[in-house]
Amino acid sequence: MSKNKLIYLFSEGNKSMKTLLGGKGANLAEMMSIGLPVPPGFTVTTEACNEYYSKGGTITQDLKSEIFKALSKIEEDTDKKFGDKLNPLLVSVRSGAVISMPGMMDTVLNLGLNDETVKGLSKKTDNERFALDSYRRFIQMFGDVVLKIEHHLFEKQLDQIKKRYNVTEDTELTIEALKELIDSYKQITKAETGREFPQEPKEQLLLAIQSVFDSWNNQRAKVYRDIHDIAHDLGTAVNIQAMVFGNMGEDSGTGVAFTRNPSNGEKEVYGEFLLNAQGEDVVAGIRTPKSIDQLEKDFPKAYKQFMEVSALLEKHYQDMQDIEFTVENKKLYLLQTRNGKRTAEAAVKIAVDMYNEKLITKKSALTRVEPNQIAHLLHPQIDLEQELKVLTKGLPASPGAATGELVFDSNEAEELSSQGKKVILVRPETTPDDIHGIVAAEGILTTRGGMTSHAAVVARGMGKPCVTGCDEARVDLDNQELKVNDKIIQKGEIVSIDGSTGNLIMGSVKLTDPGLNEECQKLLKWADEIESVGVRANADTPEDAKKAREFGATGIGLCRTEHMFMGTERLPKIQEMIISDSEIEREEALEKLLPYQEQDFYEILKAMDGYPTTIRLLDPPLHEFLPNVHSVKKDLDKLINQYGENSHQVEQQRQLLNKVRSLEESNPMLGFRGCRLGILYPEIYIMQAKAIARAAKTLVDEGYTPKPEIMIPLVGHDKELVILKEMIEDVIEKHTRSEHEQKLYHIGTMLELPRACVTADEIAEHAEFFSFGTNDLTQTALGYSRDDAEGKFLAHYMQNEIIPENPFMTIDQKGVGELITTAVDKASRTKPGIKLGVCGEHGGDSQSIEFFYKVGLNYVSCSPFRVPVARLSAAQAALKLQEE
Amino acid sequence: MSKNKLIYLFSEGNKSMKTLLGGKGANLAEMMSIGLPVPPGFTVTTEACNEYYSKGGTITQDLKSEIFKALSKIEEDTDKKFGDKLNPLLVSVRSGAVISMPGMMDTVLNLGLNDETVKGLSKKTDNERFALDSYRRFIQMFGDVVLKIEHHLFEKQLDQIKKRYNVTEDTELTIEALKELIDSYKQITKAETGREFPQEPKEQLLLAIQSVFDSWNNQRAKVYRDIHDIAHDLGTAVNIQAMVFGNMGEDSGTGVAFTRNPSNGEKEVYGEFLLNAQGEDVVAGIRTPKSIDQLEKDFPKAYKQFMEVSALLEKHYQDMQDIEFTVENKKLYLLQTRNGKRTAEAAVKIAVDMYNEKLITKKSALTRVEPNQIAHLLHPQIDLEQELKVLTKGLPASPGAATGELVFDSNEAEELSSQGKKVILVRPETTPDDIHGIVAAEGILTTRGGMTSHAAVVARGMGKPCVTGCDEARVDLDNQELKVNDKIIQKGEIVSIDGSTGNLIMGSVKLTDPGLNEECQKLLKWADEIESVGVRANADTPEDAKKAREFGATGIGLCRTEHMFMGTERLPKIQEMIISDSEIEREEALEKLLPYQEQDFYEILKAMDGYPTTIRLLDPPLHEFLPNVHSVKKDLDKLINQYGENSHQVEQQRQLLNKVRSLEESNPMLGFRGCRLGILYPEIYIMQAKAIARAAKTLVDEGYTPKPEIMIPLVGHDKELVILKEMIEDVIEKHTRSEHEQKLYHIGTMLELPRACVTADEIAEHAEFFSFGTNDLTQTALGYSRDDAEGKFLAHYMQNEIIPENPFMTIDQKGVGELITTAVDKASRTKPGIKLGVCGEHGGDSQSIEFFYKVGLNYVSCSPFRVPVARLSAAQAALKLQEE
Repeated sequence: MSKNKLIYLFSEGNKSMKTLLGGKGANLAEMMSIGLPVPPGFTVTTEACNEYYSKGGTITQDLKSEIFKALSKIEEDTDKKFGDKLNPLLVSVRSGAVISMPGMMDTVLNLGLNDETVKGLSKKTDNERFALDSYRRFIQMFGDVVLKIEHHLFEKQLDQIKKRYNVTEDTELTIEALKELIDSYKQITKAETGREFPQEPKEQLLLAIQSVFDSWNNQRAKVYRDIHDIAHDLGTAVNIQAMVFGNMGEDSGTGVAFTRNPSNGEKEVYGEFLLNAQGEDVVAGIRTPKSIDQLEKDFPKAYKQFMEVSALLEKHYQDMQDIEFTVENKKLYLLQTRNGKRTAEAAVKIAVDMYNEKLITKKSALTRVEPNQIAHLLHPQIDLEQELKVLTKGLPASPGAATGELVFDSNEAEELSSQGKKVILVRPETTPDDIHGIVAAEGILTTRGGMTSHAAVVARGMGKPCVTGCDEARVDLDNQELKVNDKIIQKGEIVSIDGSTGNLIMGSVKLTDPGLNEECQKLLKWADEIESVGVRANADTPEDAKKAREFGATGIGLCRTEHMFMGTERLPKIQEMIISDSEIEREEALEKLLPYQEQDFYEILKAMDGYPTTIRLLDPPLHEFLPNVHSVKKDLDKLINQYGENSHQVEQQRQLLNKVRSLEESNPMLGFRGCRLGILYPEIYIMQAKAIARAAKTLVDEGYTPKPEIMIPLVGHDKELVILKEMIEDVIEKHTRSEHEQKLYHIGTMLELPRACVTADEIAEHAEFFSFGTNDLTQTALGYSRDDAEGKFLAHYMQNEIIPENPFMTIDQKGVGELITTAVDKASRTKPGIKLGVCGEHGGDSQSIEFFYKVGLNYVSCSPFRVPVARLSAAQAALKLQEE
Repeated sequence: MSKNKLIYLFSEGNKSMKTLLGGKGANLAEMMSIGLPVPPGFTVTTEACNEYYSKGGTITQDLKSEIFKALSKIEEDTDKKFGDKLNPLLVSVRSGAVISMPGMMDTVLNLGLNDETVKGLSKKTDNERFALDSYRRFIQMFGDVVLKIEHHLFEKQLDQIKKRYNVTEDTELTIEALKELIDSYKQITKAETGREFPQEPKEQLLLAIQSVFDSWNNQRAKVYRDIHDIAHDLGTAVNIQAMVFGNMGEDSGTGVAFTRNPSNGEKEVYGEFLLNAQGEDVVAGIRTPKSIDQLEKDFPKAYKQFMEVSALLEKHYQDMQDIEFTVENKKLYLLQTRNGKRTAEAAVKIAVDMYNEKLITKKSALTRVEPNQIAHLLHPQIDLEQELKVLTKGLPASPGAATGELVFDSNEAEELSSQGKKVILVRPETTPDDIHGIVAAEGILTTRGGMTSHAAVVARGMGKPCVTGCDEARVDLDNQELKVNDKIIQKGEIVSIDGSTGNLIMGSVKLTDPGLNEECQKLLKWADEIESVGVRANADTPEDAKKAREFGATGIGLCRTEHMFMGTERLPKIQEMIISDSEIEREEALEKLLPYQEQDFYEILKAMDGYPTTIRLLDPPLHEFLPNVHSVKKDLDKLINQYGENSHQVEQQRQLLNKVRSLEESNPMLGFRGCRLGILYPEIYIMQAKAIARAAKTLVDEGYTPKPEIMIPLVGHDKELVILKEMIEDVIEKHTRSEHEQKLYHIGTMLELPRACVTADEIAEHAEFFSFGTNDLTQTALGYSRDDAEGKFLAHYMQNEIIPENPFMTIDQKGVGELITTAVDKASRTKPGIKLGVCGEHGGDSQSIEFFYKVGLNYVSCSPFRVPVARLSAAQAALKLQEE
């Protein structure tokens, strides 16, 4: 016998019981408890689901009897009887996971209908058309979801019958047509499953529940959980609820509404409504719905009630709600409420507005926005200064703009994307089976469906541009083309979409540099008020430095100097340096680079006036500045043909070839780079130090306060740092005129080798700061060459949960994190209060930022566009830790 | 004022004061204290040397006055007076470091002579020839060592005068000739230094002492210390001692003797003696000396006395002694004693003999042999079954055989060796300036000099074959050829030398597999009795496995399976597997490899009957089994020419090219290899496990006890191990018939990634053993690609003491060692008593073994030839730790 209570009536639960009842179940119970019109029902718990799995996928006798006991309670409340020929109770069976997974799980409506009860329903409601419509819906959904019959078989039949009866909408189907449809559906069922459509309502119910349980582990649900980092062992609850009918005729309907606009956050009830329809018609985007405002005209009483409910629920939940409702014969029923998904822009506005409305606290507001959503705000927008070839306009379902080649198939989208191509996925409508295509595409366009259709919801979640309901366009899958009025666009042609306006545009478009709006700036200012890690930016150019300041970076955490050698004027000079055989020749070549470096440093330090700027001295192996062996050899052959074996030109090229060969490495990642270069070719670092010192001197003269932090890369042994630090200090001393000026400088090192971490106590003696180079530290600690791993085995490792996530995106806490913790401990023992930062890509990742804050780093540094994300992440990390 | 006593008379010291007085000074004092005939003198301490350096290289007034005070004490004892024109005291000035550094430091004899005192000496001894000979020696040595005049200038003059006077030996020079020589030496001095030869004895003395101090930091001394791991800050003492003269005529002489034979360890006084000569004549090998036995005939009384002294000193020091002595007018004087350097063979024999003679304990015997000497014993010897073109025979100065191209210059030897060539260095005689040439050469041959000449001593120390005194051969440096009787051998020709017989052989020779002699086996058995780390071998073939057992390995610590894929029959099959596109094709190809692997495992496990055998599953990246892109492309072009674009052959080759390209990696060291292969291509590891299981099953049937330990390489995440372990266990289960049989197997992993070390607690849950792969762990922890580092910066790093030693030879204790310690701690916490080993190259390195023992590993594994070394190292590590 099971010890736990496996079933809760809605009247027994409340919103705090999410883990047990799932989000949907808990909220249905809560709504019922505060007196809202919720049809009666009960929830089978997530524990029951897990028990189901632990029993190898069988529903126990105990559970069965609990289910039927609860069912009889609904019968009492509704005064109907499940399976009764005269007064049949129909129920919906819906999944309800702890964390909302829209479109991922399965739903069956109108359950309890069979050849007998349909007649009873018809008589009882005096609406044969309605009863038959419900029955055909039931067979189709049950057939698809429970019996796993391909749903296009039903669709085809529906289309044929609509053609035969010469109607376009489902609602126009006559009784006769519906009867024919039901018969053909039953035939399909028999042909596909080898047995009659199950007529016994209790069997239907158990099969449906089992099917919901099973759907927890179907492929699309798993993919969704992987993408959204949801644990796979939470399980799903199942909600069984008395049906109310939106398809009972023209005084019925069904809808979905948000208490605020989910696209821009405006304070207005925002939703969609379909007359004479059931819920799935809205979600699947089969018909394009009416705006919620029209409800007022159609059902003024229900509309007024819904507005009140909407305000009540938002206040009750202290968050914007996403509400499903049905109007049955003008009477309002609530079928679901949950915190509504929203765009980044909306999330920010709602959070700030709710604080202003005194609905929530500042701290609470800060937790209302996912840091990654801030990144979406910085999505490029279409530059309005250009002429756009707008083909047509759909609904602006998810903001941002995207350009790519047209593709009509999700598999193909994935395939092309893996080849590095940008694609726009176009579908009549999307289903959860398209999830991988949506992930792969730059943007999504559907010709059908509304703002709450599958495509719209999923794309908003991912921050991808999306246009839906683009009904002037028609997808021709056979010919792989998109017809817009009389224009035909072929697969592979380049189009753009603007998810903020709904435009479909021919060709590619110019995008604007995005910025942060006022609300977002306010929210980030609140974030900065929370004591946490500082946020700096990785910036290699004066432009980046300015951008970094604009986005609120309080310094540069990583300025890579090698990029400064890459310009067309500069590259030949660094090459000259590399090819030189003597120190003197190298110094001469470097002397030519000095003015460029000095100018760069001048501008960067000026942009960061008063803020620390960490400049990393030359890091990559020298061969990165030279052409590869093959191209040098090819050129050599050409020169021999042109000038003869013994010419000066050939001699020079041969010298280059020898140099390129001598610099080849079998594992450049672990090779002759970083401070190893500085030790063997001190003249390089001396030139760089000189450029920094001269730039700083000029700035001081001009009244600025440059704060250069000179960072020596790839230190593994303290003596490396000792030697180079002394060398650099000599240069600085020569270029400064006072102790005050010298104090502007700091010299430190990047910790990016495991050895550096475990000997951080020794290295700290000679360093004024440490910055963890988590990219390389991840490569060395895990023994993963990023280039090789991502192409060869990393995807397999993540899919098979050998590693929890991509360690190059989110810090590997157990491995790399342990080395960082060790280093922090050891360094602090030698030099308490030593400044500690991180400048790998992880510096912009929320989860990683939380870790860095916990181990006590002073700042993180990331790309300028991630700075706002990091500022919010840092605040959330601190708030979370305060709570714990 | 200096607080320390900076000078000790010999009568004030004893052998325990080595650190202060240096080895030579302490032993002179000790000999004096036990009543042996030592000429009086005193020692300037190593502290004085360090004070000299701390004062920037000046001798303080305090030290000067102490020196002259001590000198007056010698004057008293000898009844002579320093600088006195009638009865002059002459002294030797010799360096004396704490650890003996033969030939590295400078010596000046006959100091105190000048144009006046030489006359007094002449009169007083009534031996003008002797006095003049001493004076010319003094000017030459002082000129060379103190005044830094190139010594070949003196040599040339000596040769010219010998020619002019038509004599061959120095001893044949007449008074007239000597006077001429002295004049020309003084002229050389003036020409080279711009001043007269210093005539003031006190100035001579101070300059000489300063010069000894300075010589501590000359290039050759530094190199010697680097090679022998001697600290650079020990400093040297200086010994000032009254001269006794071996060059006083035919009843005088000088010699060097060992209390036992330093070449084979036989218990017999073994030495050399030169009549009418001074010490440096013997050491420099200028004349070929007489055997010590002849002393008996020439000076029977002194001989008898020397034999007694020899026995006494050996007993007193409980070790074989290397004694310098001089006979002046038939009277014996002792000038030095020290523990004698010896060959590996001698070291072992002496240790075992002395234990048998009850002179030392077993434990003491074990510390008498440097573990690396054992490796020398395993030096290949010339196979006597072949016909040898023996050109001539010299003295067997250091055992072992070597083949290489003839080279006459040390710089050239170094140059060629760095190009990977093997060279035999041939010199008339070697000096400390040749040290880098000796390091670089495979073997050394000198035409002059004896068993105690510079070449002989240094070569023995390094375990390099050496032949000296090969006087039938003549080196012609001008023509760069070696003349042996009428045969001329040019630079670059291939010769061989046999240091065990003294043979010089034309061409290359076949070598025998060396073994361990009886004494060595006995010593190693004693070593095994000491509780310490076990010693296993790295062995990939049945032959290696047998060799491993022969050398006393108690298991195989690493059997690399990839080498088994490399045979000409096998390689095509693994290539077939790699090129296959489907799992089924791969399985078919692997099926063909199975019998080979099974046979290999059968034989290896049989050879190791009853001993554990750690088999590492496939580790290297697959591209290592394929030809490289360029050669595949070349072949493709050929095939296109031959068969046309669309032929089957071209299609196949194109497929190969694609595969080779797809497997290319930017950092193969950090790429798709190790268990990552096993995870993505499970069929490979399944085949290997099957081969092991089938081999073991057969052996069990045959009555053997195979103990396979299956090792999974490159694990970084515990789940990798979980997945692969389960897979392998399935295979084993299928091939075993009882629990007893299953218990023969163990499954573990190699720890070779920093992440594996810091998460060893998690990994240990699933592993039955760990083996540290210190090669790869060093690469990842330090971020050094071994191939790249050794070619590019490692040498510079070691020379500049950025790293203390090559981390691929001796474990980097602070970095890699710290990770190992962490892993041991964590693993033991999860699974106390988990079996821990090491199988990198460090497993055969003495210093590393001591570390591994300290951190608690159970065994080390190294190449079969290093096994005896490791056994002794292990014992010594344990003894050392017991002492501490």
